[in-house]
This record gives sequence, structure tokens and C-alpha cells, in this order.
Amino acid sequence: MYRKIAADLRDKIKSGELPPGSLLPTQQELSRKYEVARMTTRQAIAELINEGLVVAQQGRGVTVRDRQQMVYRPQDGWEAPTSPTIDRFTAAFTRHGRNPSMEIDVSVVQADDFVAERLGVEPRSQVVARRRVISLDGTPFHINDTYYPYELVRDTEIMSPADIPGGSNYVLAERGYRERYAIDEFFIRMPTPEEIGRLRLNPGTPVAMHVVTGFTAREEPVRCDIFILPGDRHVIMYERVHPIDDEGRPVSTPRGGQS
Amino acid sequence: MYRKIAADLRDKIKSGELPPGSLLPTQQELSRKYEVARMTTRQAIAELINEGLVVAQQGRGVTVRDRQQMVYRPQDGWEAPTSPTIDRFTAAFTRHGRNPSMEIDVSVVQADDFVAERLGVEPRSQVVARRRVISLDGTPFHINDTYYPYELVRDTEIMSPADIPGGSNYVLAERGYRERYAIDEFFIRMPTPEEIGRLRLNPGTPVAMHVVTGFTAREEPVRCDIFILPGDRHVIMYERVHPIDDEGRPVSTPRGGQS
Repeated sequence: MYRKIAADLRDKIKSGELPPGSLLPTQQELSRKYEVARMTTRQAIAELINEGLVVAQQGRGVTVRDRQQMVYRPQDGWEAPTSPTIDRFTAAFTRHGRNPSMEIDVSVVQADDFVAERLGVEPRSQVVARRRVISLDGTPFHINDTYYPYELVRDTEIMSPADIPGGSNYVLAERGYRERYAIDEFFIRMPTPEEIGRLRLNPGTPVAMHVVTGFTAREEPVRCDIFILPGDRHVIMYERVHPIDDEGRPVSTPRGGQS
Repeated sequence: MYRKIAADLRDKIKSGELPPGSLLPTQQELSRKYEVARMTTRQAIAELINEGLVVAQQGRGVTVRDRQQMVYRPQDGWEAPTSPTIDRFTAAFTRHGRNPSMEIDVSVVQADDFVAERLGVEPRSQVVARRRVISLDGTPFHINDTYYPYELVRDTEIMSPADIPGGSNYVLAERGYRERYAIDEFFIRMPTPEEIGRLRLNPGTPVAMHVVTGFTAREEPVRCDIFILPGDRHVIMYERVHPIDDEGRPVSTPRGGQS
């Protein structure tokens, strides 16, 4: 029976009858309507909370999750958009008048296996960690922790816990380590308790862990960025251009032809 | 107290003391060790199940989740890899000797708002849906549902529920609708009950919904692909090349300069 109640509520959320931010009927109202015990309605609502469809808010009851999603475009600032269509896609998720802020914390830490592998250094060797939480209008939005090989960044601005004008790529380029390409990895999982705390996540909120490893033209790793992107706050977007022209001829690529 | 038990088990999983596939101590063993009621150990384990760290397997007890992740590269077959490094990254997640299979179902359906917006057609107008579940070694791996504007694909092979030699892009190109670029969107969320059923997902398994909209050079949408990628089975990977050369000169892009 609790499955039927959950399914009915799910349908109403999907159809828009219960729009984002609206209050769900109370457990008392549901118990009366379906003629079941409060325990049963509680179970139905717990299921929807685990699915991330609704959020229990202290003193307000249970509301339909309001997905304030923003565009997250790894290519931004790197590759120019190819088509006007991308603007139409991003427009739907672009919020105006939001006030970004961040906390930065810089420290020298021992690389764990994951970061060491990507930076091409020995596990537990020293790396510089710049840890940031980016907030919008005071709400934590995502985590961005960047790791650098220690020798590359010591005695640079990257060591200071302040915003870097021009970005850290500029600092690395000045030292002869210009970033020429990057590999993006995305892992989809539930957040760790630490991430739940740093980002104040509601139950049923999965995250994308976006790992960017940046390389010079000589294939030297220069940074490893780990972003934690809560699913209810981000839409990840890319644009790709097919290397085949309108006559069906392949366009050559740096490595020579198509794979 | 259940939080302490969960934290201890989480640490053991993270450190590898409890490796993927291994059995967790039984509730009885945990109750004895921590001197708590079975209810408390049950709560600790329920927390780890919701986080997706462990899986309750009928008749086997609770085991550490074995993430058999595969590389999912949207650029594959489109853009050739630029650097040998990408091969090193993908190698870790490439499984050999796996046997792929798929179920295909083709039907003419009414476009919902989401698909209609992407295909540039009226909501509830007719579109062709090719629905596939891709399995590896008999286990469902991901969902791939593709939607086409009806007029573009009627009387083509795309209407038949069989594999298309050369792919559907080839069929569209033959009809004068060669795909030239695509926009990727990723939404991170918990699966719907329908997706849990089609993919036989364990609790605590979030998914990435990957939406690909393909366009001709004339900006006409030709297809909308919706992939449902369970987080425990996929690593999504991209490679990007910076349009700045080693002397710091910007490389021109189709739309003219950097954004």
C-alpha cells in the first residue's frame, strides 16, 4: 500500500500538479485519504525522500524538491561554442543576479593513491591542495579541490589562500608549464559524510565527482582538480563537433585520423 | 552509536581492509563487538546501503560493492584521442572478454515536453522511439532510448527493431541530414522505479541521465538520445585540447576566437 501512495505522489510531482517547492499533503491527510496507518504514509514519504524527489524541511513539512540547476560547462574558457544552439540550451539553466562567494584553504598534504596516480607522483609524496567551497547567495554550491605537484607551485601565488587574478593556469604557464590538454573523468555516486557536511546536502542527493587532470604538451601532469557537483544544483554540458564535413570527408585530427 | 559503527565500516572499505566483493561482519558479530542491540547494527548497515557502499545479497549476506566500471566516452568514434595519455586513463576501466547484447524495441510515440523541446517539435507530436537496454555478460548495463522526428526516419531501417549496420547516423546522412555537432547534457539523480526495474539496480545507486541532441550544419535537430548510466558501472570520460598554443597564441575556432 505504501508503494501505491508513493506512486500517486510521484505521478503528481512528474505531471506538475505538485510543483517544485510545494507542500506535500501531511501524513494525517494521507492516512485519512488512503485509510491506512500513519506508519504506512511515513514509509511512502521516506521512499520519496530517498529518491530525492522531496525534502523534509524542519518546521515546514515535506516539500517537492526545487532543482535550482546551473550550467556547468567544463569547456568554458577553453573552447568557444561552435553553434548558437548551445546558447539556447544553456539559457534555460542560467540564473541571473546570483552572488558567488568562496572559501579557500591552502595546505601541503600527502597525495592519496587516487591523486598520486593522476599527478604521476609517488603515493604519500607532498602535493599542494587548494580546497574551495563555492557558494551562491550564501548556499554552498560545489566543492573544488585542486592538487598540484609541490615543486611546480612552491613560492607562487598558488600557495596563498586568495583568489588568483588570471587563474592558476596563468601562473603555471609563466613557470613553463602551460596546460595544453585535459582529461575529464566523472564518477556518479552518493556523497560521503564529509561532502554532506561541506555542501549541506539533503538526503537522496547524489553527486558527480568531476576529476580534471591537466597536462602540458610534453604530457606532464600539472594539476588534478576534483569537483563535487550535487545533482540537484548542476547540469553538466558539453558541445562536440563531428570531424566529418558535409561531403562526408574526415577532418584530420592532431593524432592523425579517426580512432 | 550506529553512526560510529557505520564510520568504522566505511573506513575499512575506504582503506581496502574490506575489499570489493568481501562479506561484511554479520549483524550478530557487530552486536557482540560493539555491545549494542541488533537494531543498532541494522541501522548502521542500512546507512551504508543507502550510500551505495555495500549491497545486501539474498542468501549471501551484505557485501562491499564491486564497482565493475567501464569507460563511457561520448567522443568515441567522433573525435580521435589527442594524446597517448588518454589510453592510460581508459586502460584502468577497460574490461576484456565481455559479451555485449541488446534488446531493441521501436515504436511511434508522442513526444513529452523534454524530448519535444530538444527535437524542436510540438509537444505530443509523433516521434520514433528506439529503446534499447545494453547488457554485458547478461547483466543490464545501461539504457539507450533514441528519439527521431517522425518525418526524418519513416520508411528507413531506423524503424526496424534490429541492429543498423553503419549506425543510424549513416541512415540520416543518406537522407540529407548529416549530423555535424551534438550537445551533451548530464543530469545526476536517483533512478525512477522504471529504471530500477529495467536495469536491476541495487539500492543507493544513482544514475547519470546523458542526453545527446544531434544537429545538422543547418542547426536542425536530428535525434535526441537518452542514456541512463548507473554510477556503479560507468566512468564518463572526455578529452579536451586547449585552443592556446605553446607560445600563448589563441588557436581560432569555428565561431571565431575564444568565448
